[in-house]
Amino acid sequence: MKTFRVGILGGSGTVGQKFIQLLHNHPYFRVKAVTGERTKGKKYGEAVNWLFSHEIPENVRDLVVTSSSPSSLDVDFVFSALPSQVARAIEPLFAENGLPVISNASAFRMEKDVPLIIPEVNPQHLSLIEVQRKLRKWDGYIVTDPNCSTVALAMVLKPILDSFSIRRVIVTTMQAISGAGYPGIPSLSILDNIIPFIPGEEEKIETETLKILGRFEKDHVKEAEIKIFASCNRVPVLDGHLEHVYIEAKEEVDLETVKQVLQDFKGKPQELKLPTAPSQPIILLNSEDRPQPRLDRLAGDVPGMSVVVGKVKQGIDKNSLSLTLLGHNTIRGAAGSAILIAELLASMNML
Amino acid sequence: MKTFRVGILGGSGTVGQKFIQLLHNHPYFRVKAVTGERTKGKKYGEAVNWLFSHEIPENVRDLVVTSSSPSSLDVDFVFSALPSQVARAIEPLFAENGLPVISNASAFRMEKDVPLIIPEVNPQHLSLIEVQRKLRKWDGYIVTDPNCSTVALAMVLKPILDSFSIRRVIVTTMQAISGAGYPGIPSLSILDNIIPFIPGEEEKIETETLKILGRFEKDHVKEAEIKIFASCNRVPVLDGHLEHVYIEAKEEVDLETVKQVLQDFKGKPQELKLPTAPSQPIILLNSEDRPQPRLDRLAGDVPGMSVVVGKVKQGIDKNSLSLTLLGHNTIRGAAGSAILIAELLASMNML
Amino acid sequence: MKTFRVGILGGSGTVGQKFIQLLHNHPYFRVKAVTGERTKGKKYGEAVNWLFSHEIPENVRDLVVTSSSPSSLDVDFVFSALPSQVARAIEPLFAENGLPVISNASAFRMEKDVPLIIPEVNPQHLSLIEVQRKLRKWDGYIVTDPNCSTVALAMVLKPILDSFSIRRVIVTTMQAISGAGYPGIPSLSILDNIIPFIPGEEEKIETETLKILGRFEKDHVKEAEIKIFASCNRVPVLDGHLEHVYIEAKEEVDLETVKQVLQDFKGKPQELKLPTAPSQPIILLNSEDRPQPRLDRLAGDVPGMSVVVGKVKQGIDKNSLSLTLLGHNTIRGAAGSAILIAELLASMNML
Amino acid sequence: MKTFRVGILGGSGTVGQKFIQLLHNHPYFRVKAVTGERTKGKKYGEAVNWLFSHEIPENVRDLVVTSSSPSSLDVDFVFSALPSQVARAIEPLFAENGLPVISNASAFRMEKDVPLIIPEVNPQHLSLIEVQRKLRKWDGYIVTDPNCSTVALAMVLKPILDSFSIRRVIVTTMQAISGAGYPGIPSLSILDNIIPFIPGEEEKIETETLKILGRFEKDHVKEAEIKIFASCNRVPVLDGHLEHVYIEAKEEVDLETVKQVLQDFKGKPQELKLPTAPSQPIILLNSEDRPQPRLDRLAGDVPGMSVVVGKVKQGIDKNSLSLTLLGHNTIRGAAGSAILIAELLASMNML
Repeated sequence: MKTFRVGILGGSGTVGQKFIQLLHNHPYFRVKAVTGERTKGKKYGEAVNWLFSHEIPENVRDLVVTSSSPSSLDVDFVFSALPSQVARAIEPLFAENGLPVISNASAFRMEKDVPLIIPEVNPQHLSLIEVQRKLRKWDGYIVTDPNCSTVALAMVLKPILDSFSIRRVIVTTMQAISGAGYPGIPSLSILDNIIPFIPGEEEKIETETLKILGRFEKDHVKEAEIKIFASCNRVPVLDGHLEHVYIEAKEEVDLETVKQVLQDFKGKPQELKLPTAPSQPIILLNSEDRPQPRLDRLAGDVPGMSVVVGKVKQGIDKNSLSLTLLGHNTIRGAAGSAILIAELLASMNML
Repeated sequence: MKTFRVGILGGSGTVGQKFIQLLHNHPYFRVKAVTGERTKGKKYGEAVNWLFSHEIPENVRDLVVTSSSPSSLDVDFVFSALPSQVARAIEPLFAENGLPVISNASAFRMEKDVPLIIPEVNPQHLSLIEVQRKLRKWDGYIVTDPNCSTVALAMVLKPILDSFSIRRVIVTTMQAISGAGYPGIPSLSILDNIIPFIPGEEEKIETETLKILGRFEKDHVKEAEIKIFASCNRVPVLDGHLEHVYIEAKEEVDLETVKQVLQDFKGKPQELKLPTAPSQPIILLNSEDRPQPRLDRLAGDVPGMSVVVGKVKQGIDKNSLSLTLLGHNTIRGAAGSAILIAELLASMNML
Repeated sequence: MKTFRVGILGGSGTVGQKFIQLLHNHPYFRVKAVTGERTKGKKYGEAVNWLFSHEIPENVRDLVVTSSSPSSLDVDFVFSALPSQVARAIEPLFAENGLPVISNASAFRMEKDVPLIIPEVNPQHLSLIEVQRKLRKWDGYIVTDPNCSTVALAMVLKPILDSFSIRRVIVTTMQAISGAGYPGIPSLSILDNIIPFIPGEEEKIETETLKILGRFEKDHVKEAEIKIFASCNRVPVLDGHLEHVYIEAKEEVDLETVKQVLQDFKGKPQELKLPTAPSQPIILLNSEDRPQPRLDRLAGDVPGMSVVVGKVKQGIDKNSLSLTLLGHNTIRGAAGSAILIAELLASMNML
Repeated sequence: MKTFRVGILGGSGTVGQKFIQLLHNHPYFRVKAVTGERTKGKKYGEAVNWLFSHEIPENVRDLVVTSSSPSSLDVDFVFSALPSQVARAIEPLFAENGLPVISNASAFRMEKDVPLIIPEVNPQHLSLIEVQRKLRKWDGYIVTDPNCSTVALAMVLKPILDSFSIRRVIVTTMQAISGAGYPGIPSLSILDNIIPFIPGEEEKIETETLKILGRFEKDHVKEAEIKIFASCNRVPVLDGHLEHVYIEAKEEVDLETVKQVLQDFKGKPQELKLPTAPSQPIILLNSEDRPQPRLDRLAGDVPGMSVVVGKVKQGIDKNSLSLTLLGHNTIRGAAGSAILIAELLASMNML
């Protein structure tokens, strides 16, 4: 594989930092540019309030942060870690200028011609890129990854949906503070507390999941015909979103089948052995008190990229089941997902 | 009202301590005896590992802890804060000896002739006492209060059930560490973590609620015909169980009606103005990010005795709704509930 | 005592809110005005992000927040909860306009003609008011209370200093997150962590204490001849600053005498029975594992106004001793201290 | 290097688990036996309540736990993770039987003929082994590692003591909950709290440090002539003990020299390039808000084996200085230290 020069839009925030951390020693991608309005003009290592225990990778530390304009970057493609409102204004400029934009922002996720991708779940939605380019007359394009809670939910629903006709999903999340960025949640708000509200999160889960699980038809994605209801909570946990999922199907649901399809679930990234693809996208635990965020958020051979599932059990009737899942919100739920999308695009010669 | 001499069985544990704290300066009840197998023979103030910031009430501090046998107590009735297995053996001895036992233990809750009471919800179930006495040939009797998560759920379901035909309830709880007693949950298990499992809790919620919401018929309680599914989690919060509740009814559910009946809900304790009865058993908050455990667990005029509800909203279809509730697990969920039952019994001349 | 009309400068921040909470039902003081640049023009109840579990006092909820200018307030005196830089510009305007300003800001604390007061420790420093008025040609005046860690330390040093010749003090603090205000410390910074740094805090402790413990001489305060070295840490605790204090004296130190003078310590507020004066300014605990922030921060008859001391023991040699103290940082360490100063001034007919 | 067969005494506790985790894929040592009174007879993987996110190493998972008696183990030497009281009875049996015992227990640390070792600091104290063998007529021997807070302190004092005449040390620790083992500190005791007391800890720091920093003379260790005063606190942090250290010397102390000798500090393990030896035993950070437990506890090339130091500054006078240090309590403070001792002994052909 050739080596790609990569830019990180909004590289000083928590997601931007996670991109830089995960791309350290990446076999395909080299970070060559970092943008940031508040930090531009300074060396990255001096501008950033680095949040991790590992040091800033040396090749990035000395990069001078630039403005988020296409002309100031000499790269093959960009990852966007911009806040959503900024992303809405900025990302199109890059796509117009011929650059692929792989975005973690929510700004364009639900636009009809923008792919919202989990590489194991709906790689065929990447066909929307051609639709988008034609429609918007762009040389580049925008591809998005889903909201942090949505990724893990959609990954787990996918193999179940391939075996059973899911009608309704009721999900309650317990989401880590790192999901709110930095400074994010004040400690005075969350110590000895839970906040049963995350702005916009429930809507994102309820809508994005349907698009991801939908079918690509000719020039658009037909959304899955599932109803989802989400209740989201912020909890005093550093990393890892835990979700209790109650699923109702049209027919009887066999638990053993469900467990089997979860464990067997694999997708294109595993087939192509992409560098950031975990060998098991879904890890099934049998202990009745797992998954737990601190113990399981880094499970698997690519830490943070597997969703961990436990407590698969019958619901109120034979048509329903319940399970608990855990996804690492800043890896599979953000930067890791975007990197896996980029690897997939690279393998398709689309970067 | 006359003054009653009260014994606390298992008075050194967390629930026992809460009884002693809440009974301080109680208008009807005076703690005259405390039992405890590990602490017997010592003065209470020296034996106990007191967990609260307020001091041990003076009249209890110097009581000598005794064994949990009826002969060693000269009291009018007892509160039981015994562990469930011990309660199963010990509580009947007191009832046999002519003493009312108001128990927070789970041992007898689901026995057909034992009342499981929330004074605002099902005071008429106290009629089981006569059934029990006849059947067991006891001069005293056992009355129980529900599991800490169940109380709050059943209180909120009651007024809704009086207005709509609830079919199914799916509940996800986030429960405070104080619910596990002391030493209870090791800090190494829960800091930066959530444990998606509480032994026996889900079953208790799923069964106790049906009994509480059932109808007393002649000599037994006919359980409510609702199906409940519970997922329970331990979270790093000191006090206060938060529950997300998804309710499906047979008919369309009008949200304004639901809010109204929740706010208007009152029961016998309010009517009788019992000392521990909050003027509003259910407090409805309008802010989209409430209730929160730390901010709302002591809301209302009798701190810890009101259930706080928020986020009442439509579910997936018109027949369903969702809401978030918070109950103080060691007050309304344990000692406070038992005290309110005792007050009700006192007002009925049954102590 | 007559009733005074009070204004709160910067009433929407954490300290401002604490003033409003503590002044609820105060026997002398009525909050009649609240200022705040970001919230002006709105009703207080709608403008503020209220942080406490108790509700906003009704009489304040409907006050319209105004700008922090003397002309917009019709009050007898003001409490200032302004940030230090703002305080430096604003507080003199009020003093010039004839109003007493009792300030929790650090801006003027170390000015030679500004009293820095702990009512039990150095009430005689209030004589600086006359010096200040003459010098600055003000009708009003500024009085300040100390930094949150300093108050507790100086209160404990005072009775010891009255009995022994303290040479040096080495203090290590563990300070609660509420000390940093709101939003203050990000949860991502402090969960499972300690930050061994609080900007400016060590200097404040090392200098303010010397002024407080100094002697008023004619027209100035002669600083105490003690050397203090402070190391400050932010810890994941909601309220309550814990401090380990190592004290070296010139002569041998008798521990029993130290314990006695700590317990016996009383000052003018106790003598005058001021409403916010705790009957025991210093509470001595004997248990080897106390004081603890959560258990002891509200100890005493005026919650949050007593300093709790424990673990008084010999140091390395006979001239030295060590003790552990706990002060409630937002009550005795901020708003409560300022209110007690105001009560003292009221009793002296200086408001 | 030949491969050694290793036994872990008390392998199911937290320190025992850490040994097993750290010895996974160790170049010299293979775990061949695990003992434990409560778990004996079961497979380790089934008996243990595994506390880490990484899985139990495969070669250990299927070992059957045995009793802690020399006859039941076929190994070259043992690591002891026994509780101190048990260690006192059991460890001599192994030494008598010809086995080297490298112990993390405190039982024998202060015995005159037992080496208390930090490989970088006092490897020459291993000469006590011969004294011990002769005296006790043992074929094997006992070597101990220090208390978790002591290791880090002694490592930092060593290079300073080599340059300056330290007279007194005043240290305040903030210690992680993992230091108390499992179940250890109840969450109800430590959430939103600090406990200013750790049984026996202050004495251990004050005495062990003097032995470690002492000089081996013929057949005994002459303790260093320093006075140490320690105040120990338990804080809600998972791993990593933070210590504020105030040091007084007989002469003026030059801060630049201190920083230099800390950074340059190396010992035998570095010289011999032992597998668990970090290339920098002491890492010096310059940022004024470091070290922080969560960010720095795994710093360096052998995670958890370096002590991280920051905030080196002048004390009250020119003869004194202050610094803040962080040591990983279960790695350098326990299992990692013992393993490094074993590596050193192996290199000396003493295993």
